Order: sequence, then structure tokens, then C-alpha cells
Amino acid sequence: MAIEKMKPTAILLLHCPDQLGIISELTKFITDNNGNIVYLDQYVDREDGMFFMRIEWELENFLIPRDKIEDYLHTLYGQRYEMTFHLYFSDVRPRMAIFVSKMSHCLYDLLARWKAGEWNVDIPCIVSNHEDLRYVADQFGIPYYVWSIKKDHSNKAEVEEAEMKLLKEKKITFIVLARYMQIISDAMIAAYPHHIINIHHSFLPAFVGARPYHQAWERGVKIIGATSHYVTAELDAGPIIEQDVMRVSHKDTPTSLVLKGKDLEKIVLSRAVKKHIERKILTYNNKTIIFS
Amino acid sequence: MAIEKMKPTAILLLHCPDQLGIISELTKFITDNNGNIVYLDQYVDREDGMFFMRIEWELENFLIPRDKIEDYLHTLYGQRYEMTFHLYFSDVRPRMAIFVSKMSHCLYDLLARWKAGEWNVDIPCIVSNHEDLRYVADQFGIPYYVWSIKKDHSNKAEVEEAEMKLLKEKKITFIVLARYMQIISDAMIAAYPHHIINIHHSFLPAFVGARPYHQAWERGVKIIGATSHYVTAELDAGPIIEQDVMRVSHKDTPTSLVLKGKDLEKIVLSRAVKKHIERKILTYNNKTIIFS
Amino acid sequence: MAIEKMKPTAILLLHCPDQLGIISELTKFITDNNGNIVYLDQYVDREDGMFFMRIEWELENFLIPRDKIEDYLHTLYGQRYEMTFHLYFSDVRPRMAIFVSKMSHCLYDLLARWKAGEWNVDIPCIVSNHEDLRYVADQFGIPYYVWSIKKDHSNKAEVEEAEMKLLKEKKITFIVLARYMQIISDAMIAAYPHHIINIHHSFLPAFVGARPYHQAWERGVKIIGATSHYVTAELDAGPIIEQDVMRVSHKDTPTSLVLKGKDLEKIVLSRAVKKHIERKILTYNNKTIIFS
Amino acid sequence: MAIEKMKPTAILLLHCPDQLGIISELTKFITDNNGNIVYLDQYVDREDGMFFMRIEWELENFLIPRDKIEDYLHTLYGQRYEMTFHLYFSDVRPRMAIFVSKMSHCLYDLLARWKAGEWNVDIPCIVSNHEDLRYVADQFGIPYYVWSIKKDHSNKAEVEEAEMKLLKEKKITFIVLARYMQIISDAMIAAYPHHIINIHHSFLPAFVGARPYHQAWERGVKIIGATSHYVTAELDAGPIIEQDVMRVSHKDTPTSLVLKGKDLEKIVLSRAVKKHIERKILTYNNKTIIFS
Repeated sequence: MAIEKMKPTAILLLHCPDQLGIISELTKFITDNNGNIVYLDQYVDREDGMFFMRIEWELENFLIPRDKIEDYLHTLYGQRYEMTFHLYFSDVRPRMAIFVSKMSHCLYDLLARWKAGEWNVDIPCIVSNHEDLRYVADQFGIPYYVWSIKKDHSNKAEVEEAEMKLLKEKKITFIVLARYMQIISDAMIAAYPHHIINIHHSFLPAFVGARPYHQAWERGVKIIGATSHYVTAELDAGPIIEQDVMRVSHKDTPTSLVLKGKDLEKIVLSRAVKKHIERKILTYNNKTIIFS
Repeated sequence: MAIEKMKPTAILLLHCPDQLGIISELTKFITDNNGNIVYLDQYVDREDGMFFMRIEWELENFLIPRDKIEDYLHTLYGQRYEMTFHLYFSDVRPRMAIFVSKMSHCLYDLLARWKAGEWNVDIPCIVSNHEDLRYVADQFGIPYYVWSIKKDHSNKAEVEEAEMKLLKEKKITFIVLARYMQIISDAMIAAYPHHIINIHHSFLPAFVGARPYHQAWERGVKIIGATSHYVTAELDAGPIIEQDVMRVSHKDTPTSLVLKGKDLEKIVLSRAVKKHIERKILTYNNKTIIFS
Repeated sequence: MAIEKMKPTAILLLHCPDQLGIISELTKFITDNNGNIVYLDQYVDREDGMFFMRIEWELENFLIPRDKIEDYLHTLYGQRYEMTFHLYFSDVRPRMAIFVSKMSHCLYDLLARWKAGEWNVDIPCIVSNHEDLRYVADQFGIPYYVWSIKKDHSNKAEVEEAEMKLLKEKKITFIVLARYMQIISDAMIAAYPHHIINIHHSFLPAFVGARPYHQAWERGVKIIGATSHYVTAELDAGPIIEQDVMRVSHKDTPTSLVLKGKDLEKIVLSRAVKKHIERKILTYNNKTIIFS
Repeated sequence: MAIEKMKPTAILLLHCPDQLGIISELTKFITDNNGNIVYLDQYVDREDGMFFMRIEWELENFLIPRDKIEDYLHTLYGQRYEMTFHLYFSDVRPRMAIFVSKMSHCLYDLLARWKAGEWNVDIPCIVSNHEDLRYVADQFGIPYYVWSIKKDHSNKAEVEEAEMKLLKEKKITFIVLARYMQIISDAMIAAYPHHIINIHHSFLPAFVGARPYHQAWERGVKIIGATSHYVTAELDAGPIIEQDVMRVSHKDTPTSLVLKGKDLEKIVLSRAVKKHIERKILTYNNKTIIFS
């Protein structure tokens, strides 16, 4: 993988009310300060009059020091354009925690990509409410933490507190729910706003909630799907990142749908995680803008 | 098209509780009576223990006269196997009424196929609540009937009565709602049980009801769909015949979704109509079994 | 359709070696001259170091008269940036000639969209080597011209000369081969460089040439496709505009593949024609850049 | 997984010239001998007049002992119907050898499914010409064998001999080339006729041979694909088992195509392997019949 060899870049994601000259100004600002732009993509939502942009430039020879860039941007554009922005550096790797339950397919898919060096990410821990997948974590040498949540949820607050403590210690920047099967509390969602990625095993908004393949089978659909989205307080209603589908037929049973769906789930989840790691997702109005 | 040149066949669709020997018996019955079987497909739903079959044989040299076949089947198998069956003849063409409103894309798609001889079907009439598409009917020389339904629906019963009269006169065997945009009354549904095909412009059961593309845009989905189904008393809840989908992105607006969706709608509707004309659909438990 | 109501715009497609500041300069030039930019999309091919852009602005209040814009662009940017550009006006409709042979599905699909006002295009004539589809042209009131090409092609040069004369008279700006089944001569291709759109009934480059569905069936593929491309001197080797595919199985015969493929062909061709009409295609290095 | 709990079955795959009564006779034979049929699917190729069938029945209470079933079938039907058949038992697991080179994505996908108990298969060994993926084999506790093939292939015969010896010792029943990147000799192909599954990283027959993603990028395709097929003596020309595709655009580079393609490759290969393990593939005339 050439990831390590690439020169460090700054990645800027921003949105603001659409106005003339934003692209000109920003590209001029970066160029005037010796920044070599390697990526630029922008999108204008003409219904809402909003401007969205992702721009990336090499830090080598850039005249403004890393830790001052944000200040400059704020001063120059923040208020004037009502601009909201997020600044990342390509050599500061995101740190991903994976939450799992009992099924291994998504976990293996994530870890195999990480191990092959496909992704510019660290995975400091795997968290679960069951011991079942410890062997997978062991295979890849990643610490595995188990807190059992009781059926009556009586210890849920306590468990989440312990989890939050771990996430903080491990400096986790985003969480992936790889078929975690538990509802995340509002407190944790608030701590990671639009930074918890879930995979739901249906083509949302069809079949919200439990046992979507059974629901799909009951309804007699001819296509099943999977949806990855950021977790928000409302169940299965957060901004959709990626979806995909697969043709099925009357010959399928709930069991065969579950099995076929596993392929969809892992691919759709991994595509979403990849986009997140690459800082190519902006959220706005409970939707995602995905840069290519 | 070779449709006309094919030898007439009998087409039998049946379902019954699964038991040993049904295939053997039926194929033996047909063969013993000099019927040359040209199609046989069967499916067993092991969850429900039901057997479904489509079998087709040439009528030439078949020893039992056409009008006696149904009697024989009833006597031999009806009660013994608790068998429900439908018998068709390939040279008795189904007669399709098309209901439209203002959009022409599905109508053109249906008529272009019919005109090209792709389908073994007659189209004795097109029915609408608007004059808008009369010119299309005229282009293809098909009688076009308009009954305006008032906004308050005060004349709806009356209109449907007139429509039912027409359908009877024209000996219509099934109805296609090609973006008709009106809800069909229970009386008409009862007169054509599982013989009214609708196209809904979403991936059902997501976005039931009005303005599904706007709903899809609001939800920020990454894929849109279309669904053809048999109309039942519950809105958009009848047996699904065919679905297909198309990838969209944050760049799409409600308007672009509507435009893109038109391609899905017409293809999905026409695929469903084709299967119906070929007598390759069985309905059971509010689902369809589609023979290949 | 809102097409007519939109304010007239200028559409500029350009490419040049990638350099800093091109976007800035161009947007500044347009804005400084009172042009309201309604579309901007750009793409950088980092392998070849090429910059591609599509920009569209309202002509109302634009300070430079229409017929001077091209001069200005040449003077300001042409040589300095080695820029190649194409300028269009949204109210100058492209004029499309359709060439057909005996199959109607693509023709109906094109005409139904045109008739419904989906496309901002004129269709002054349909050309064929057979009488078969005159009735379709008549249905839509479009002049239909037939020149029979002899089997030995002895009159082909003569026929193309007559066709070229017609295209000139009708001020045709681009040609659509809607399953025309004849090879276009180099002279006609040279007269319409990257302005003749063909639909090939396979997933190119698989199954170049004749009878691709039979070739596909022979090879036992599990998916069939269709490809629309600009015609160049080399058979089926021009820049690909759009492709799509469909799943098939061992149960398909050459005949069923032909029938299924018709749906692919018409949709894929119409998508390509739409992009061409919207001036959203740039060609470079025998490939297309398709703006969204 | 419920695989272990299912009652042992016999699985019979057969083909023969189509004749009346084959289904009747076979089902009667099985039923008369107390076999409970749990699966029956048949297909008639009307072009070639061939009949194909897969039938599965429970061995419990079946009157004919396992080791006599093949004799009975031969005697009763072999010659009379010119029937070719393959008999398997569900509790005799196929034994799969995986051949790899340096890329891990297909290998991980296969092993993760095996480890999760999705497949009724044994994996006694992994074979490679490089040490690179030994760590994956170690993670899953599977013996890993390396024989380096010299660049001039001077030791290839010797290596294959050693491999063949291993395959024999390990009682391997079929081989999966999980991006093995070496051409298999005719001798090994002859030893495993239609029992070596390869994944080719293109939509065959487009882009046969080396570097298909680069070929695809050069050609400017809008869709890429992957193809799993049985290996035959002619390169990339064996019976196709499964294919799938993915949309790409002008923005893709050879590198991004390679990365995107990996998802296709692993899914398409695993689907093919699954069908093979389930004994749901028949080959005929260099094509596959895939039972559902």
C-alpha cells in the first residue's frame, strides 16, 4: 500500500450558504501559501442554497503551521461566510472502536482490510457484550473487552460508563457497530455525534427495527438490502451513508435471506467506514454528502 | 415474432399441500393422454408444506377435449390433493385494459411492446380520468375512454360503475394501472382479484402512499426503486410481482429522482405485465411465486 | 416540463493541462461580467495531468454578448492554458437525426421521451434502410427517409452522400444509431466526430461485432449488457458513454437474451442521448468524462 | 449453524437426453424405497434436447444401502436413458485446497465463512508460491505449504508434482484458486476436471489474461466485473459459475479499480465455492447449470 509513502496533506471539509467566489478565495488562499492542491470537489444544493466542499493540499512547504491553519480559516472565512468546517491531517490516523455481538462476518471484513493495509486507521479495541468473538480479536492481536448487558438492561448505564471510559483512554475518534445488536444510549451518541456508524440489515426506511429479514420475507419482497448510517437518537433514522441491494425470490426462506444478507451487510458497512476514514463524508440536514 | 406459429398449449398453474407423487401422477396423466409437455417447473415451500407447479403441454393430439380438461383435473386431483388450479390456453389471449392519468412513459412502454408483437395480449381499451393521453391512444388506434373523477370523489361510485360496465363489454381479463394515480374501489378489486397490476414508484414497503420520491429525497436514501404488485384492498400492500432499483446520490433533487424513476417504473411494470400475460405468476399468502 | 421556463444559459466545456488557478480565473471572469453561475463541476485526471470542467451561467445581464464570448475565451485563456473548449447555449437546441433499421424498441423509447418534453432537442428526421418503421415516424409526425443499401453495398457511397445532404439540409448536430445495423463510413464519422451515438447490444469490449447475444449464450455468461458509445473508425471501439447489465441464467436461450436485452439497449441508449443533449460529455483519449 | 443437525441425505445430479417420464420414474424409485425427497429441481435445455436434474433425499430409512445406490442407478437408468450422474452424500464433506499468492482478500473471505460454520467443507491445506500469507493460515490453524516457482518456470513441473502428491495425501476433492496468479498445468487440470475454481478479475470474456483492471481503465468502461469459472486447458475460457459487476466512472484510476474490484472478486468467488460445496452445479458443453 502506498498510504504510508504519500506526503502529508491537510483535508478541509466545509459547508456554508452558497456565495460567489468561495472556491476562488479558498484555492487562492491555499495556493498563495504554497499549498499544492491534490483534491477539490464541491457541491451546491440549489434547493437549500448551501455550498459544500472538500479540499486537500500537501502540507510540505505550506507556509502556515499546522496548528495555526484552523485559526486562519476561522478568522478569514468563518464568520464572513457563515462557514462550518472540519480540518483533518492525513497523517493523523482516525482511531476506530468496533462493537460486536455474536456474528463475525462484518468484523472479519473490517479486520481483513485493516490487516491488508487498505485503510489508514488504527483499531485500538473491540468491545462486545459477549465472549463469542474474542477468538477473532485474538487472531488479529487486538484487545477485546466484554461487558455483559443484562436482559433487563439494569446494568446498561454502568456498562456504557465503563465503555465511555475505555473509549476515552484509547482516544477513539469513531465507533463502528458491526452487527452490535444493542441500542446505543443518547449519552454515547451525544459524545460521538455523527461518528458512530451502524449497519442495518434492511433497505431503510423499509423494515426498521428487529428481524428485518423476517419482515422482508413476510412482505414477499423481490430485493433485499442493507444500509449503513450514522447513529442518531431516533432508531435507524440517522443520515444514510451507503446502501446496496440483492435480488431474491419466492424460493428464499428467512434463513437463506439472513445468509445472503451477510454479504451485503459487510460490504455496505466497509464502504461506509472507508468513506469515513478518508474524511469524504459531510452531514447536513440528516443526510450525507459523499465526496468521490 | 414466433408467437403465432407456436402450437396451442394448455397451461396449468396449481398449488396444494405437498405430497409425494404429485409430479409423477400429473406428468403421467398428461403423457398417457398424448400431451407433449413443453414446460414444467415446480416449487415446494417447505415452511408451509405447499407445492406449486406450472406445467404446459401441446393440445395437438391431446385425447381430452379442451372443455373437458378442467373437469378431469377436478375429478382426479381436486379433492384428493386439496388442489387449487387455474387452466389457460395459449391461443386464448388475455385482454388487458390500461388505466392512465397524465404521464405517458409507462403507457408508451406497454404499447410499444404490444405493437412490436412482443406480447400475446389484446388491448381493447385505455381508460383515464383525464383527456391528456388521448393522443397516445390515437397513435396506436386504441379506444380511449375518459371519466373525470371529481376532486371530492362525489361521482366516484358512478364512474367506477361505468368503468365496470365497459370492462365487462370488452371482456377484459386483467387491468394495468400505468401510473393511474387513483385509488381503486374495493368493488373493482373484488371483481378482478389479483388481476389488477399497479406500479408504485418506490421500493415497497418503503414510502407507501403519495409522493414517494419526495419522501425518498427527504430521507436521503442512496438507492431508489419501483415496485409492481397486485392491487388488494390495503393500499400498496398487495403481492409484489417485481422490483428494481437504481443508485442515486446527494446530488439528486426530487425532480431528478422523479425523472430517473420513470425508467424504473416502466421497466418494472412491463416485466410484471409480461409475467402475467405468460401465466407465470401464482399468488399465495399475499406473495407471488414467479415461474421462470 | 420546466425546460422552456428556465432562463437561457451558456454552457462551457473545456479541458487543458492542469494548472493552479484555472477555476479561480474562470469563475472570476464570469462573475465579474455579471454571469450568475448555476452549475460548476470539474475533474482532474492526475495520471495525465489534465483538467476538465463544465460551467454554466445565466446569459441574462451577462455583459459580453453571446457572439463575442468565444472570442473572449480564446483570447484570455485559449493559448495561455492550452485550453480546448466547446461553448453551447441552452436555448439553441441540438438537432438529432435517428437512424433505424427494423427494430422499434429504441426508436419508441427516444420518441416517447421527446414527445413527453423530457428532452431539450429537435428531431427533424428519421433515416432508415428499410420501410419497416415508417409507421412509427408517422405516429409522431416526423419525416422518414428510406435509402435501401444493397446487400453487396454497391450503392453505399451513393446512399451516404444522399444522407449527408439531408443531414446538412436539416442542420443536424448529432446522430443516434438506434439499432441501425449498418456500418457507418469513415466520411460520415469524420463529419460528425464524437457526435454519432451507437448502442451495441453487449457489454463491450466483450462480444464485438455481429450477434453478440448468441456469442454471450455460447460463452455461458451469467450477465448480459449493453453499451452506448460514440462511433469512431474502429468498429465498436469508440469512447463508451454508458453501460448497464442484467442477470441471466442457464435457462436463457439466444431468443430470450435478445428479448431481455432490448430493455437494456433502450435504457442505455436513452441515458447516453440525454447526457449528450445536456452537453455533459467530454471526450478525451478515446474515453468520456461524464458530468453529473 | 444447523448444518450438523440436518439428517444425512443423498444428492443426485444427472443429465441425459430429454425423454418422457424420467422425473416420474426417479421420484417413484426413491419414494418406493422409503426415501423422503427434500429437494427436486430440473431443467430442460430444449435447444439441445437435454434434461438436467438435482434431487436430494434423506438416507434415514432408505432401503438401499449407500454403497449400492450407484449400482442400482446404473442398472436401472444408466444405459436406458444414456444418463450421466454424480452421487454425493451430505455427510461426506468436500475437501477444499486453497491456492494463494500474495493478496489476502479472497483467502480471508473464504476462511471467515468456513470458521463461522457457513459451509459444510473441510480445508486441509493452503498452498502458495510465496510465504506472504502464511500468517493468515496460522491465524486459522491451517497447514500452509510453499513451493516457489522460479521466474523461468524451470521447476514448475517438479512443484506441481509435489503439489499433486500433497493433494492426494490430503484427499482433496476440489481446488480454489484465490487469486493464485499462476497458470495451472494441463496435468493438474486433468486430475481435477471441473473441480478447480478460479476467480478472474474481469467480466469475462472481456479482458482475458493479465492486468484486466488496467485493460478496463484503458478502454474506459463504465462497469467492471469479476468472474468465477472452472479451470480448463484454455486460459480463462472454462465454464462460468458466477459473475458480478460494479459501476465505475472516469474518476477511477487503475489503482482505485483494483481496490474496488477486490470486493467483487471475493464475493463472486465465495458464491461459486458455496454452490460447488452444495453440489448445485452441473457442467455441460462448457457451461454451468446452477440449481437454486
